[in-house]
Amino acid sequence: MASPSTICMGQYLFQRIKQLGTEHILGVPGDFNLTLLDEIYNVSGLKWIGCCNELNGAYAADGYTRIKGTPAVLVTTYAVGELSAMNGVAGAYAEHAGMIHVVGMPARSLQKARAMLHHTMKSNMDHAIYIQMAEPIRETHAYLMEDKTMAEEIDRTIIACLRSRLPVYIYVPVDAVSVPLDAKRLETPLDTSVQNKDSKIEDHIVSSILSLVEKAESPAILADVIGVRHGGRELIRKLAELTHFPSYSTPLSKGVVDETKPYYNGLYNGKVSFPGVADSIEASDLVLNIGPLPSDSNTGGFTREIKDEHLVWLGHDFCKVQDQTFDGVHFLPVLKKLVAALEAEPKKFKLPRPQKAPRPDVPLLLDQKSGKIKQAYVWQRLGRFLRENDILLVESGTAQFGMPDATFPPNVKLITQTFWSSIGFTVGACFGALIAAKEINHTGRVVLIVGEGSLQMTVQEIGSYIRYGLKPIIFVINNNGYAIERAIHGPEQGYNDVSTMWDYQKMLEFFGARQELGIKTKSRATKTVEELEAVLNDEEFASGDNYQLCEIVMDTFDYPWRLSEQISVTREKMRRAAAQQTAATGEA
Amino acid sequence: MASPSTICMGQYLFQRIKQLGTEHILGVPGDFNLTLLDEIYNVSGLKWIGCCNELNGAYAADGYTRIKGTPAVLVTTYAVGELSAMNGVAGAYAEHAGMIHVVGMPARSLQKARAMLHHTMKSNMDHAIYIQMAEPIRETHAYLMEDKTMAEEIDRTIIACLRSRLPVYIYVPVDAVSVPLDAKRLETPLDTSVQNKDSKIEDHIVSSILSLVEKAESPAILADVIGVRHGGRELIRKLAELTHFPSYSTPLSKGVVDETKPYYNGLYNGKVSFPGVADSIEASDLVLNIGPLPSDSNTGGFTREIKDEHLVWLGHDFCKVQDQTFDGVHFLPVLKKLVAALEAEPKKFKLPRPQKAPRPDVPLLLDQKSGKIKQAYVWQRLGRFLRENDILLVESGTAQFGMPDATFPPNVKLITQTFWSSIGFTVGACFGALIAAKEINHTGRVVLIVGEGSLQMTVQEIGSYIRYGLKPIIFVINNNGYAIERAIHGPEQGYNDVSTMWDYQKMLEFFGARQELGIKTKSRATKTVEELEAVLNDEEFASGDNYQLCEIVMDTFDYPWRLSEQISVTREKMRRAAAQQTAATGEA
Repeated sequence: MASPSTICMGQYLFQRIKQLGTEHILGVPGDFNLTLLDEIYNVSGLKWIGCCNELNGAYAADGYTRIKGTPAVLVTTYAVGELSAMNGVAGAYAEHAGMIHVVGMPARSLQKARAMLHHTMKSNMDHAIYIQMAEPIRETHAYLMEDKTMAEEIDRTIIACLRSRLPVYIYVPVDAVSVPLDAKRLETPLDTSVQNKDSKIEDHIVSSILSLVEKAESPAILADVIGVRHGGRELIRKLAELTHFPSYSTPLSKGVVDETKPYYNGLYNGKVSFPGVADSIEASDLVLNIGPLPSDSNTGGFTREIKDEHLVWLGHDFCKVQDQTFDGVHFLPVLKKLVAALEAEPKKFKLPRPQKAPRPDVPLLLDQKSGKIKQAYVWQRLGRFLRENDILLVESGTAQFGMPDATFPPNVKLITQTFWSSIGFTVGACFGALIAAKEINHTGRVVLIVGEGSLQMTVQEIGSYIRYGLKPIIFVINNNGYAIERAIHGPEQGYNDVSTMWDYQKMLEFFGARQELGIKTKSRATKTVEELEAVLNDEEFASGDNYQLCEIVMDTFDYPWRLSEQISVTREKMRRAAAQQTAATGEA
Repeated sequence: MASPSTICMGQYLFQRIKQLGTEHILGVPGDFNLTLLDEIYNVSGLKWIGCCNELNGAYAADGYTRIKGTPAVLVTTYAVGELSAMNGVAGAYAEHAGMIHVVGMPARSLQKARAMLHHTMKSNMDHAIYIQMAEPIRETHAYLMEDKTMAEEIDRTIIACLRSRLPVYIYVPVDAVSVPLDAKRLETPLDTSVQNKDSKIEDHIVSSILSLVEKAESPAILADVIGVRHGGRELIRKLAELTHFPSYSTPLSKGVVDETKPYYNGLYNGKVSFPGVADSIEASDLVLNIGPLPSDSNTGGFTREIKDEHLVWLGHDFCKVQDQTFDGVHFLPVLKKLVAALEAEPKKFKLPRPQKAPRPDVPLLLDQKSGKIKQAYVWQRLGRFLRENDILLVESGTAQFGMPDATFPPNVKLITQTFWSSIGFTVGACFGALIAAKEINHTGRVVLIVGEGSLQMTVQEIGSYIRYGLKPIIFVINNNGYAIERAIHGPEQGYNDVSTMWDYQKMLEFFGARQELGIKTKSRATKTVEELEAVLNDEEFASGDNYQLCEIVMDTFDYPWRLSEQISVTREKMRRAAAQQTAATGEA
């Protein structure tokens, strides 16, 4: 029992979480977490949000984190719950959309007795076996087995999550929930700020960058997604606005630089970029690469060509200025100091410096007015449907490779998973984004674009939007299967098919958006440009006030050019590597 | 390239799988497994079956294995696929419904270069990191990195799967698919039989048992699920038929003993059994416990009371006769010899021996004729709906705790997951069971009973039944949330709610069973006994020839007695343990 100066462990945990500004806890109940969940109701301002399953819950947590900027909390149960969530947590690890994953466990006495409870796998099993399985997909974890260290373990883990932007785990045995902890600790808020050990090194990096900026003839900014994920979004925008240096985003960071500004030069994805974009950035004599995530599909299959001597790399785990590497230095304090220094002496650095060369034009790919809907037309058109402040979720597959063709209005927040690339992700992530948007009183719409193969993976979470009264605008790209896989291999093979029997026009109705319940809802299927234009130009649809869905039917074998190009670049690289290997073997 | 005496690795693998009698490969495509999947089409008699997602795929594989008796094959892709499947594979591990899980991986050259491909999590990551994560949920694995050992590694892994009845993994780098292997190996079928190292020990065990049988006054058979999973089903039935010893099943093995036979004495679940059942088996002076799985919910919360001196334990990892333990001895060869010995000399062993004591009556719990449908009525009634040879899937939750009240007709194969207890399992498992039933030309129906909270977890796989023309009879228990959790804790807490807005009457239609497509389908909702009786007595419904669903609406707070009893037994144990601990602490 908790005395006035103590507080039970479960409530301590949720009070700490509330202090982060979190208002909703996501998850799925299970008999090893029920008493823990009770404590949510004892913290004023916290609400429980049930998800249909744990993978979707993890996706939702990821989406929440991306919009809220602070980590979502996901609660699952022992074994069946935590293992179901793994792929979603791993994706949040890969793309730095960290979460606090709280897992209920059997009582400590039963763990010590190695009781053969349900959710174990054999007699005399170490109950902690699943903790070990999640080791590679988390920054750290707390395993609350000792009364004495519970409070500090919770604090340590939460701080690590905020600083690393990676998932952390807190494992809570059923009986630990009621352990009394020192309530006084809660009076001291957690210091979750990102700090480097040695501020002199930060100063050194900043002054090195400043002298490069002074000398540079054609400096540029390449703003990537790690910058966004680690809370650098506003600093990046400020840097671009302050300097007017030609600024670029990547497939993962699209939208971070205001695309309506004259200094926005386009989306840089190595050889898989619009004409002029790669030439332009690769000709810069200084590239400030903020928060890089240099994966295959974020670099045009490793075809970026920026010379080391022109590159300033500001990463979450190291910074690098030309040939000097600073291991373990986080970019965020460096970027803060850099922006402050530039802001303080704009004249010294000749800021702003409008670019001299003409900015690369965005080509209009296909100005379709009628007929069957083509990939080359649809993405730029959907881009024009977007409005300032929209939150946009773009599923892996053709949507992900098509959307970079669009030009965004200001302040669109894009959620896409180009690195982890788990299909079905956006349906869950959209749920979390909707909840985060509610918490921050976001005024923009939430727009979900998902292919039908991906939708089939995680479709039940559409029901959760409706359950909680959340209304994204949903586009379903219906092109008869896994188009991205068809483009890669086996376009006509049966394994790339999905069921074509689902009727997406009946989906919202099935999940609960029904006129008979007094709910306004409308679903529309579009097979031609005329039909699609009619929907996109319909103010009722565009307002997003009702439950609604627009199905866009496209040809099975029509792919976005970026997808085809990325595949051909990758194939060419593999072909050359194989040829080199053959040559090398021949020599040996 | 494969010369006439060689065969490419991918085809070698699928030829080996075909040799097991497998006709369908389950899974989800991904860019690291597409060329592997091509090889399915090159093996005559093999077909690809696409699942909506990997967790459902793993559940389907589990269900397939339980019906087919040989392991299903599940193919997933690197990282996103294999991690999504984990909970399903772990369940198959816990309940010995093993599968061959084949995972596509990046080409070996890219693995060696530690390329930052999509589906990795960071730069310079060991691509094998996910292999390590799955270590606790498999018997063994093959990681096909060396041309020379690929064939033997595949063979070794498949054999291990068949012998252990546990999941195994085969990791296939994209470029390994085309590696030429020795085709001649395929001419020698794999020896997958279960053998103990020392047949003399088997003989010793058998003769010990035989002498106990000779002396026993009141011998009994307790047939459990490991016996079924390891291929002992027919032997168990033969043993019971041969001896007429009073025979018992468990929650997990229900149906293994023909319940219409006079020697079937009921389902033994410790204190959570029908009156007379526990007394009867616990009074036996010899209990042949075949294939035990002594988990909490399979033993009435560890309340079995069979004395060690009366117990013969025939397990998959050890056998024990009274106080003599034989580690590492598998029951199957022992059981074969035992049955043969008894069959050879029935007179010596006075077989059959009809039981003297009256068999415990199965009480009629509630003879409801009208009004709202009650838990106490519904399960025994659904039991009477069953027919000989039905395959019955019973979801975790109220269904799982209710169904033991029913009496099965002969040869009902029950699929339920009382040990692993992952809700949503049956919806996927049903898909696999349907496919296996097709392969073995099963004449009985496939009946799925699932609660709506569980259904929401995995609902999309209903669409796969329809896609592939498979028609189970579906019962949806609709009682407003997670009733099993309500019974355990927080009956009125919001976390035990699920969306009540789904319209299950529209489900089959949404997923593709629509009259407009020429498909016969019917969904019905029942809220009263009269309505339910009308459906159950409808020959068209009972025939299972169409797509159809029967929703059964029940009260939110009505629970099966076994569930309440199990919880109260467990609470009492925890209370006593806590009291003991307090006492112990007081003494110290």
